[in-house]
Amino acid sequence: APVVDKEVDFANYFCTYAYLYHQKEMLCDRVRMDAYHSAVFRNAHHFRDKVVLDVGTGSGILAIWSAQAGARKVYAVEATNMAEHARELARANGVTDIVEVIQGTVEDIELPEKVDVIISEWMGYFLLRESMFDSVICARDRWLKPDGVMYPSHARMWLAPIRTGLGDKKMEDLDVAMDDWGQFVEETQVYYGVNMNVLSKAYRAEHEKFYLKSSIWNNLHPNQVIGQAAVIKEMDCLTATVDEIREIRAQVMLPISLDGARLAALAGWFDVHFRGSKQNPANEEVFLLTPSLKVSKGDSVNVSFSMVRSKENHRLMDMEFTYELHEFSGKQHPAITTKMYLE
Amino acid sequence: APVVDKEVDFANYFCTYAYLYHQKEMLCDRVRMDAYHSAVFRNAHHFRDKVVLDVGTGSGILAIWSAQAGARKVYAVEATNMAEHARELARANGVTDIVEVIQGTVEDIELPEKVDVIISEWMGYFLLRESMFDSVICARDRWLKPDGVMYPSHARMWLAPIRTGLGDKKMEDLDVAMDDWGQFVEETQVYYGVNMNVLSKAYRAEHEKFYLKSSIWNNLHPNQVIGQAAVIKEMDCLTATVDEIREIRAQVMLPISLDGARLAALAGWFDVHFRGSKQNPANEEVFLLTPSLKVSKGDSVNVSFSMVRSKENHRLMDMEFTYELHEFSGKQHPAITTKMYLE
Ligand SMILES: Nc1ncnc2c1ncn2[C@@H]1O[C@H](CSCC[C@H](N)C(=O)O)[C@@H](O)[C@H]1O
Ligand SMILES: Nc1ncnc2c1ncn2[C@@H]1O[C@H](CSCC[C@H](N)C(=O)O)[C@@H](O)[C@H]1O
Repeated sequence: APVVDKEVDFANYFCTYAYLYHQKEMLCDRVRMDAYHSAVFRNAHHFRDKVVLDVGTGSGILAIWSAQAGARKVYAVEATNMAEHARELARANGVTDIVEVIQGTVEDIELPEKVDVIISEWMGYFLLRESMFDSVICARDRWLKPDGVMYPSHARMWLAPIRTGLGDKKMEDLDVAMDDWGQFVEETQVYYGVNMNVLSKAYRAEHEKFYLKSSIWNNLHPNQVIGQAAVIKEMDCLTATVDEIREIRAQVMLPISLDGARLAALAGWFDVHFRGSKQNPANEEVFLLTPSLKVSKGDSVNVSFSMVRSKENHRLMDMEFTYELHEFSGKQHPAITTKMYLE
Repeated sequence: APVVDKEVDFANYFCTYAYLYHQKEMLCDRVRMDAYHSAVFRNAHHFRDKVVLDVGTGSGILAIWSAQAGARKVYAVEATNMAEHARELARANGVTDIVEVIQGTVEDIELPEKVDVIISEWMGYFLLRESMFDSVICARDRWLKPDGVMYPSHARMWLAPIRTGLGDKKMEDLDVAMDDWGQFVEETQVYYGVNMNVLSKAYRAEHEKFYLKSSIWNNLHPNQVIGQAAVIKEMDCLTATVDEIREIRAQVMLPISLDGARLAALAGWFDVHFRGSKQNPANEEVFLLTPSLKVSKGDSVNVSFSMVRSKENHRLMDMEFTYELHEFSGKQHPAITTKMYLE
């Protein structure tokens, strides 16, 4: 595992979470809120008279709900100064003798007792971005009773073949950026006597990474999905280990179900499960495939996927996709490999 | 002086400079480019057969110009991987035996000899944001010959009283943000049973800081200036010390020259001087004054100004303005103090 500079990491990672503006963004995400709300209140028996640990309480919302659902005690741990606001909020909502807000990282704090329930909203883009699940695992191993429960309890990552015009749009953006660069090279020669052309290739590479090889957060229409989705990773939050998520590798066969379509991207999303309820995705990540492929019903696409943490920042992900078209006729196309960045 | 965590600082500060995209932005800034270009070529006698140090060479542009102007040797120091591109650029422009690119921070690198000229483009917003001049001072003290010269050689910071509708616009934005928050509080109570109202004050404070107390980068029209500008800081780059810029304090009297105007902000800008040429400002920082003041010709505004480095990030600045209207009639208004952030 690469060495993580804790200071650098914390300074960057926790920065945005210290703003009410950002906490509010999350509190306005109805899909997320409804999933946790019903998870807590429909399973109130799991919370009644129990001891709960909220990992990364932020504004304190999940801790307050846990108290309202009948918890005897809730430890609400938050790294940033948002902890102060969570404390105020608990007070204003009359649960101050149940919710104890502790400012610190869950890796470093101490609790006076083990807990029955761990609740946390740790999911980043495509589930694992931010690597916050590491902190939940750490909390679980230190503080969860042997018969304790996790909220959420399970998580899955999905991939599906899709059609989309996003790739063409991004290609155009790239062309515009390169035209602009061309003009810049010309003007710098004329006005300032320096030939910048030698950097054109590097400029293009920088922009290709930005436009074509960065995943795009998007709301897909169901009819963009042109074949079957596949689970590429399944996790039991009670037993998952950091080793298991540090590197995700999968190989899946995606059958195409639409005739004369263009496979222009893969979509990636996650869902998480609570006891009895589920958080479905509201948005998907789009991973462009350049070149795209003409596909037909009956074809299938063999996808090898890998995702590892970026060397510069362990909270970001470097992915690699290898895709290979098998036509229904038996004809097989050469495999194409492309890198993709989740930043 | 506050302790600076070098790792955190470097990770954040140098991040953007590692992109060609950002270097190009600077290379497309005509005001900046023209000022340095004429500074070098109109003073070619300062460069001919001389040894030059370019502090923070970025793409290498100033180093290449120095070589083209006749320098015997140019040490071009750059902290980021941009150094590699600077090296390519020097090669492509035929100055590879003169320009030696050294990747590292200027504080840490070693040179084989002292230099005759230090050239650097170290100026941030309102001159001192980024605190990069610290690095230039360090380079000067370590490597400049006793009779060496600095490019630029002098720098000044200015303040002027202005009228602007920006404050009203920002007030409206703040109102919209607070209306939105009000609706959020209501909905969170109704749908999720939690009363968020206790955080309203903190939310407002967070947004006031963002909308009203952050300096605004703006291109002013000359007729917005309603009185006389004043120099609040003057620096000789040959003798300036870090102690002298760590904290800037000034008190100036700004005479108003327009009747029936509203003093809604102060504008701040800088200029720098080279031997014989000058870089005039292309843009100004706007520091809103809330409340604004009705002023008339003959009045004057007494402004006390302080600027210190922010505790969390020494490259950002915390400012404080105290403004006090003296009417021509002799009537004196109470002093008003406001904080302002340069981020
Ligand atoms: N290791 C760690 N220790 C403590 N807090 C952490 C943490 N890692 C992330 N966090 C905090 O976890 C929060 C995740 S966002 C979720 C906030 C809140 N539970 C809600 O559902 O609205 C952020 O506020 C972040 O600062
Ligand atoms: N202490 C330091 N040591 C080396 N490089 C530094 C530095 N502080 C800042 N820099 C670099 O200085 C550059 C400033 S921007 C100016 C770039 C170039 N001279 C031009 O005029 O276009 C950035 O590339 C930054 O990475």
